[in-house]
Amino acid sequence: LVRDLPAPRVVLLYVPHGDPTEQVCAELLGLLETGDIVADGGNSHWDDSRRRAARFAERGIHFLDVGTSGGIQGAREGACFMVGGDQGAFETIRPLLVDLAVDPVAVVHAGPSGSGHFAKIVHNAIEFGMVQAIGEGVELLSRSEFSYDLPALFENWSHGSVIRGWLVELMRDALAGQPDLAPLSTYVEDTQEVKWMLRWALDNDIPLPVTYEAQTALMEYRDLNWPAAKAVALLRHAYGGHPVHSASEPHRS
Amino acid sequence: LVRDLPAPRVVLLYVPHGDPTEQVCAELLGLLETGDIVADGGNSHWDDSRRRAARFAERGIHFLDVGTSGGIQGAREGACFMVGGDQGAFETIRPLLVDLAVDPVAVVHAGPSGSGHFAKIVHNAIEFGMVQAIGEGVELLSRSEFSYDLPALFENWSHGSVIRGWLVELMRDALAGQPDLAPLSTYVEDTQEVKWMLRWALDNDIPLPVTYEAQTALMEYRDLNWPAAKAVALLRHAYGGHPVHSASEPHRS
Amino acid sequence: LVRDLPAPRVVLLYVPHGDPTEQVCAELLGLLETGDIVADGGNSHWDDSRRRAARFAERGIHFLDVGTSGGIQGAREGACFMVGGDQGAFETIRPLLVDLAVDPVAVVHAGPSGSGHFAKIVHNAIEFGMVQAIGEGVELLSRSEFSYDLPALFENWSHGSVIRGWLVELMRDALAGQPDLAPLSTYVEDTQEVKWMLRWALDNDIPLPVTYEAQTALMEYRDLNWPAAKAVALLRHAYGGHPVHSASEPHRS
Amino acid sequence: LVRDLPAPRVVLLYVPHGDPTEQVCAELLGLLETGDIVADGGNSHWDDSRRRAARFAERGIHFLDVGTSGGIQGAREGACFMVGGDQGAFETIRPLLVDLAVDPVAVVHAGPSGSGHFAKIVHNAIEFGMVQAIGEGVELLSRSEFSYDLPALFENWSHGSVIRGWLVELMRDALAGQPDLAPLSTYVEDTQEVKWMLRWALDNDIPLPVTYEAQTALMEYRDLNWPAAKAVALLRHAYGGHPVHSASEPHRS
Repeated sequence: LVRDLPAPRVVLLYVPHGDPTEQVCAELLGLLETGDIVADGGNSHWDDSRRRAARFAERGIHFLDVGTSGGIQGAREGACFMVGGDQGAFETIRPLLVDLAVDPVAVVHAGPSGSGHFAKIVHNAIEFGMVQAIGEGVELLSRSEFSYDLPALFENWSHGSVIRGWLVELMRDALAGQPDLAPLSTYVEDTQEVKWMLRWALDNDIPLPVTYEAQTALMEYRDLNWPAAKAVALLRHAYGGHPVHSASEPHRS
Repeated sequence: LVRDLPAPRVVLLYVPHGDPTEQVCAELLGLLETGDIVADGGNSHWDDSRRRAARFAERGIHFLDVGTSGGIQGAREGACFMVGGDQGAFETIRPLLVDLAVDPVAVVHAGPSGSGHFAKIVHNAIEFGMVQAIGEGVELLSRSEFSYDLPALFENWSHGSVIRGWLVELMRDALAGQPDLAPLSTYVEDTQEVKWMLRWALDNDIPLPVTYEAQTALMEYRDLNWPAAKAVALLRHAYGGHPVHSASEPHRS
Repeated sequence: LVRDLPAPRVVLLYVPHGDPTEQVCAELLGLLETGDIVADGGNSHWDDSRRRAARFAERGIHFLDVGTSGGIQGAREGACFMVGGDQGAFETIRPLLVDLAVDPVAVVHAGPSGSGHFAKIVHNAIEFGMVQAIGEGVELLSRSEFSYDLPALFENWSHGSVIRGWLVELMRDALAGQPDLAPLSTYVEDTQEVKWMLRWALDNDIPLPVTYEAQTALMEYRDLNWPAAKAVALLRHAYGGHPVHSASEPHRS
Repeated sequence: LVRDLPAPRVVLLYVPHGDPTEQVCAELLGLLETGDIVADGGNSHWDDSRRRAARFAERGIHFLDVGTSGGIQGAREGACFMVGGDQGAFETIRPLLVDLAVDPVAVVHAGPSGSGHFAKIVHNAIEFGMVQAIGEGVELLSRSEFSYDLPALFENWSHGSVIRGWLVELMRDALAGQPDLAPLSTYVEDTQEVKWMLRWALDNDIPLPVTYEAQTALMEYRDLNWPAAKAVALLRHAYGGHPVHSASEPHRS
């Protein structure tokens, strides 16, 4: 396929980060030629992208890290792109990205190699905090003594409120489709990228209290069987006589 | 003024919560008559609103708690309203609120007395988490090795990204107007209402990790002279020999 | 009973805080006489203690708030006491407290009315952070790839380590008695007093990140059915297509 | 020096982790012989220790990772040791460690290579949580309306309280030596090892809320010039009109 394309060839990758991206890049390194462009639209780690860009550059091939946001809907109706790497190569692929974007300003050159994927993971960190904030709001409304119509409230907040935005609209629609939360599991999936930013921030002495709590909440929601809890129960029993319960007791609400 | 209005009179209050609202309500109690409506559009505590509603109800006067969101711009261009209290009284003032709202669906009857102000403080709790998440994103971008054009990134994220919404647009505009953060103080004002929700959540055993961290960040940003820090420094010196510094040393970045 | 005691009578209360303490105080108010002393050794709120002290003072009766620490073992082998209220009344009951204390320095006059119970709840806040820190350590050790002998490690740490102290010894003994945590429930009891300090700190703009997290952990360990988690799962599904699971799926470890 | 020692030689290292340890190990690799023992008593990362153990093992040399706790005082009066690596090599150096330990039970074989240093960093994570908990307690006491004698309270808590232990005694002594915290800087040094545990916990989906907050507090205490704070101030100004202050305003307490 690659050999049939006219030069300069542009390859836009959307494969899972890690090994799949690594393998595709290894193959492309053998197939592409000087002046070609590889654009990784996935959520790769920015340091991997820099490493790949350097390796492709040895062969005269441009590698762009294309942070992409917009979710599933964005893939259909238009996403936004923040691109790291060579400015000239960016200009070459800009029309292609504008076609995929929700509008022309949704395509931006973020800076040198790595800057696009770094910006994307910052975006995801913000997203985690926002999503958890909304989740805490749903919990407060659900546990209040008022029997709120939750989709109606989120619809209200989608019109004129300070917090209006796409996530509030999505919460409205999701709650309209699933008004009863009881049958759902608390198990929440994770794709791990925000952890990269938490590690980078630790390395650089940057406090991220809200981002850490949002990430931690996902981990807590996914696994409810913490040894820490049991150790605390044992210890409180030891000094204060507070009862320790068995896992088989019907305590859970 | 009140006496010149035709019955039923509707009084829409926008005064600071606490004493000012209490005083105006006390005056109105002496001026209004059966069938009149008082609508408190401020950020009052929902329990105060319920107490006021009960007191007005003894006189046959309806008291509605009108949670209002939209910020400064909303006051000019249209806000959203979540209203607690009597359904009939709500229907009476609905046209008035629709005139002030960004559109008709931005006016909702939330439930019985108190439910409007409770919902508004939930909204503010979500807002705090979102704002702090954005702030952490700005810190990550600012401290990265990439020299980002921050307004350009927030403009990009305002078009098609998962986190798009009014706060991201406001951050874009604010950073465009103040690209250099260095001359700004970290001192952040607070109007205290989210603390009410944190207290309510504590009373009800509801974890709010992101909301608490967002509120705590405001307190930390406002006062940088923590005894806790100094105690930790002393203690680390005592066991590990780590140096303790004087406030007069030029340590701050 | 009270009437048979010689004056000045000293009544040392150890009853649960809240209503039980309130009722006993109300009864004592009718039974005691000028110059008598009531000493509340429970975990009452310091503001309640100040209120009670003022009420007793109207009758010429001293009310002391006696913060007491030492747990179950302390009740048998000697506790420590931090006392708020009148200095003279404190001197009167000091010998009594010294008899109950682990040694004479374990009895201290903390300051005016309320200061003893305030100091006790500060102690409990510290205790919460320490206990949760130990719990997190147990979780790290339990989930590591090393098959640690946990009681042996806590025994080691009880001799010469930086963290040595009573809680580390209690954890050693508790883990020796219950080496397998699997059959235990994560449900942890709470007696609510640390929440008072968290509220006071919120009122006074004091950041308490570790204390809040320790308190929140108790709430999370006790109730695993959070609407917040389900809202986050729904929202992540809506924008990212991440799966939502049913409560009946066998996901838990 | 090494060549003059009789075989089997035992080298006990106490050098800073990272490059210094790496260099000393590289030199020893060229000097030692089959059957010799290297024991790293520093705070090395457990994965580095495993890597070093494997490299020494190729030459028939035993490498033990010796987690050491006790602080400055422990170095003088006796510390505790948790040792990872070959059981036989451990038995060989046990008498040496017992000589340095506070008592014989303060020397424990933790498990295979790496387990000693892993356990030590778990200890340090617990230490961080405990230290921050005590710091928060000092802040609460300092900011209360009661003029506490802080050393007297910590002395009281050192006798019979639930939280009694070495850190509480050290806080007592430190506050006795420095009763006025005002002239101290909030700048707190860090030696970075607890971050390793936070990263490992992230990788393994383990929530560490108290440990993270304790580590974050150190970072916050050390650098008070957060872009996040300024971004939040700008954003709150944009939507709510809250004032933004200049760094030159005399706001700090």
